[in-house]
Amino acid sequence: MILITRRERFNAAHKVFRPEWDEKKNLEVFGKCSNPNWHGHNYELYVTVAGDVDPETGFVMDLKLLSDIIKHRVIDKVDHKNLNIDVEFMQGKMPSTEVLAVAIWEEIEADIAKHGKKLHSVKLYETENNFVEYLGK
Amino acid sequence: MILITRRERFNAAHKVFRPEWDEKKNLEVFGKCSNPNWHGHNYELYVTVAGDVDPETGFVMDLKLLSDIIKHRVIDKVDHKNLNIDVEFMQGKMPSTEVLAVAIWEEIEADIAKHGKKLHSVKLYETENNFVEYLGK
Amino acid sequence: MILITRRERFNAAHKVFRPEWDEKKNLEVFGKCSNPNWHGHNYELYVTVAGDVDPETGFVMDLKLLSDIIKHRVIDKVDHKNLNIDVEFMQGKMPSTEVLAVAIWEEIEADIAKHGKKLHSVKLYETENNFVEYLGK
Amino acid sequence: MILITRRERFNAAHKVFRPEWDEKKNLEVFGKCSNPNWHGHNYELYVTVAGDVDPETGFVMDLKLLSDIIKHRVIDKVDHKNLNIDVEFMQGKMPSTEVLAVAIWEEIEADIAKHGKKLHSVKLYETENNFVEYLGK
Amino acid sequence: MILITRRERFNAAHKVFRPEWDEKKNLEVFGKCSNPNWHGHNYELYVTVAGDVDPETGFVMDLKLLSDIIKHRVIDKVDHKNLNIDVEFMQGKMPSTEVLAVAIWEEIEADIAKHGKKLHSVKLYETENNFVEYLGK
Amino acid sequence: MILITRRERFNAAHKVFRPEWDEKKNLEVFGKCSNPNWHGHNYELYVTVAGDVDPETGFVMDLKLLSDIIKHRVIDKVDHKNLNIDVEFMQGKMPSTEVLAVAIWEEIEADIAKHGKKLHSVKLYETENNFVEYLGK
Repeated sequence: MILITRRERFNAAHKVFRPEWDEKKNLEVFGKCSNPNWHGHNYELYVTVAGDVDPETGFVMDLKLLSDIIKHRVIDKVDHKNLNIDVEFMQGKMPSTEVLAVAIWEEIEADIAKHGKKLHSVKLYETENNFVEYLGK
Repeated sequence: MILITRRERFNAAHKVFRPEWDEKKNLEVFGKCSNPNWHGHNYELYVTVAGDVDPETGFVMDLKLLSDIIKHRVIDKVDHKNLNIDVEFMQGKMPSTEVLAVAIWEEIEADIAKHGKKLHSVKLYETENNFVEYLGK
Repeated sequence: MILITRRERFNAAHKVFRPEWDEKKNLEVFGKCSNPNWHGHNYELYVTVAGDVDPETGFVMDLKLLSDIIKHRVIDKVDHKNLNIDVEFMQGKMPSTEVLAVAIWEEIEADIAKHGKKLHSVKLYETENNFVEYLGK
Repeated sequence: MILITRRERFNAAHKVFRPEWDEKKNLEVFGKCSNPNWHGHNYELYVTVAGDVDPETGFVMDLKLLSDIIKHRVIDKVDHKNLNIDVEFMQGKMPSTEVLAVAIWEEIEADIAKHGKKLHSVKLYETENNFVEYLGK
Repeated sequence: MILITRRERFNAAHKVFRPEWDEKKNLEVFGKCSNPNWHGHNYELYVTVAGDVDPETGFVMDLKLLSDIIKHRVIDKVDHKNLNIDVEFMQGKMPSTEVLAVAIWEEIEADIAKHGKKLHSVKLYETENNFVEYLGK
Repeated sequence: MILITRRERFNAAHKVFRPEWDEKKNLEVFGKCSNPNWHGHNYELYVTVAGDVDPETGFVMDLKLLSDIIKHRVIDKVDHKNLNIDVEFMQGKMPSTEVLAVAIWEEIEADIAKHGKKLHSVKLYETENNFVEYLGK
């Protein structure tokens, strides 16, 4: 098995809170991440695809093509945006790193499959100390 | 001359826009940074202090003390906050990296001077590709 | 499956040597790592936990809680310490990166399990060029 | 299972093209990577070995020994070289990151096996945004 | 004084040699950097501009504009190219990091000056261990 | 002016304490850095040299030569050593990062001057958050 990975980045605002809870309970559960006026991150996204090496190109998949899929399906929708308000594919979801990683998987999986390749993992860094990796169901 | 530097980090939301301009003009000048619903960053802050080496401790200044000043004067006020709304020392100012670096200088300079040391530079990374350094007037 | 990771850091002294061997044999097997007067490292520790996403919080596990477990069980015991002398959970063990990673796993696994989560991996960097990952038995 | 990893680096020139295609088709498929006069990279190579911890040394394998194998079998042959012209083990192969990672695996696997250890993965960064991991057949 | 910096990257091939010297003398002076068939690097370029903060925008200079100048004047000409053969502004020059940094300064200075700003420094990383900074005449 | 920089690394043990003070006072002033049984760091050292570009080589100074000087004068003496005990040029000095940076300057300045070059700065990272830069008297 051979895995190829492409890194992309985006900068977004969010807050982690439940609207049906009051501010005190949100603060208790989510701490400073629930600040009503938002905060934000430089997210780093690593998308890994598994496949065989094409003997003609030497590529599992053209990384330019993988980058284009990620930009079209994800970066254009989340970069310099508010994850709670502006992003259609996050509507009604908690904008935690875990939920965002799963949602990104769902956004890009079909496009990668169309090119005969298999999405292997979506890894998402929220900070240099905190990150999440989703490997599919 | 010897310089010592302490790195601290904070995550904040902001937007760069002028309220007296309409959305079109803001978009023209500030691009996606003016998105009405905010975006955010993992800021990296490097504070550099100049001084002489204390022969007793071998330190220009205890970096734990420098870290405490930065946390008390800056990080506690900006981390997981909205730079346009939540931060008193940014009220009425453009929350660009340049203006924020100058404002951070003004927040910490007196406390560092109280310890007989000289603030040399405030360096602020907004992303891995963009940063600002303020060296004082 | 979804994996979440928390990075923590600690600075420690150690030497890699066998007391029943003489200095010459220690030098032969362990090279400069056996220097009698110790050397040290900035260790970077990545703890990865596997689990399901809690639909209420969007978290596999609160990373603040994971950080607290690591600090309480590991960092407080090893940071600015001598791994051969000061650390109870390393007594009688070789302080290699491999053995230290396994020992850290044993220190934190039960606490993570108490919160219904599964420790997935302990990754430990000794230098930018050398690291170890333990995935359990 | 416990995994140990050694990072090594090399700087090489290459181009990705098929000699039986004309320049236009090469440009179409490989883009700027097919520039006739070559381009190059700072490659970062991570070699991971799986094994048991030797109770006497605390090591899965002496990382100095692993480093020596990688240097002797790979770095000495590719560093400051042209991957298409100068490297015997790449003759007749596409010098893509995928093919190079597989070829590096084949170069070092036997030497690692001779020491009773199992090569687990070869990870190769071409840039900070693009990398490949080969896990064997 | 306030300084703003933009990072850009490019991947290029080169060799460091003097055509009027034979291979032996080139090897003696330049070592493996003189390999006849080229090698290459992932160059990291940091361009720093000095200026005053525009009170209307909060910017010393729009970093998007600075990035465009660097891309137009430098990156488009050197990325995925051979520095000895393909790059007009390096013709007849030694493609060392020092000479390349000075040449990049000369390529971009006028465009930055046209916007009323002052180029402060060009910093160029050849590897993680070797870099050069040019501060002008 | 053009500056060239070489990065080298070393791993060492130390403690920061004054032998004429008791353990309580050392703890008060130096905190956990005074732990009697030592701790340690992966130090990163950046040595910067100023000079003119040699028109024949394109170099300010051969970075291999600069690396050799640093290795011979510094790294061989401090790597995998105890800074308080094993290092002759630190005898009788506080092993703080500040004092160590100045001592490294003094170790290498003459050798660099012998090659007609001027040492510009010694920058020393103790951790990713703490570093010191010495620019000479």
